[in-house]
Amino acid sequence: MAGFKHLVIVKFKEDVVVEDILKGMQKLVSEIDAVKSFEWGQDIEGEEMLGQGFTHAFLMTFEDKQGYTAFVGHACHVEFSATFSTAIDKIVLLDFPSVVVKAAT
Amino acid sequence: MAGFKHLVIVKFKEDVVVEDILKGMQKLVSEIDAVKSFEWGQDIEGEEMLGQGFTHAFLMTFEDKQGYTAFVGHACHVEFSATFSTAIDKIVLLDFPSVVVKAAT
Repeated sequence: MAGFKHLVIVKFKEDVVVEDILKGMQKLVSEIDAVKSFEWGQDIEGEEMLGQGFTHAFLMTFEDKQGYTAFVGHACHVEFSATFSTAIDKIVLLDFPSVVVKAAT
Repeated sequence: MAGFKHLVIVKFKEDVVVEDILKGMQKLVSEIDAVKSFEWGQDIEGEEMLGQGFTHAFLMTFEDKQGYTAFVGHACHVEFSATFSTAIDKIVLLDFPSVVVKAAT
């Protein structure tokens, strides 16, 4: 779907148990209706030059910017963010209205 | 859709006409069947600290890793990549099998 996207790419600290972070995210997206879809992945190409050390991508989709704003201000997100921020070594966030050029059929 | 994702986030050089790059990408994904979906966006939050200067995200979806490999080796991709690489100031690539936690309804 198009909608408004919240893209997070990270490198976790070495001692972080990624499974635990994922459990927290799963709970978060199940609790907040504004999150219409959520998918993630771990880079498997390992082209370190081009991955720049980032290993995981998390992508959430909202119906629109308002949905994203509701998510950001939601108490569950505020609480989760505090935990998440202690787990990361590096992060890039990009938030954008998605432009669909070729749609999945 | 789930599938295999090719995520590219970039900061373009200052003199780059992003519209031209996009036209090239549109042509590319229309020429290569292995690309099942393609969407992109320009960050509008402008939280420079967390965007780290990156401004655009491009996300392609393939049916599987084999589809992605076919895309990477496709002559049109090889040709486009040469042009694209001259336009970017910074780039991060992440390639991963997507795990769908919450699906768009």
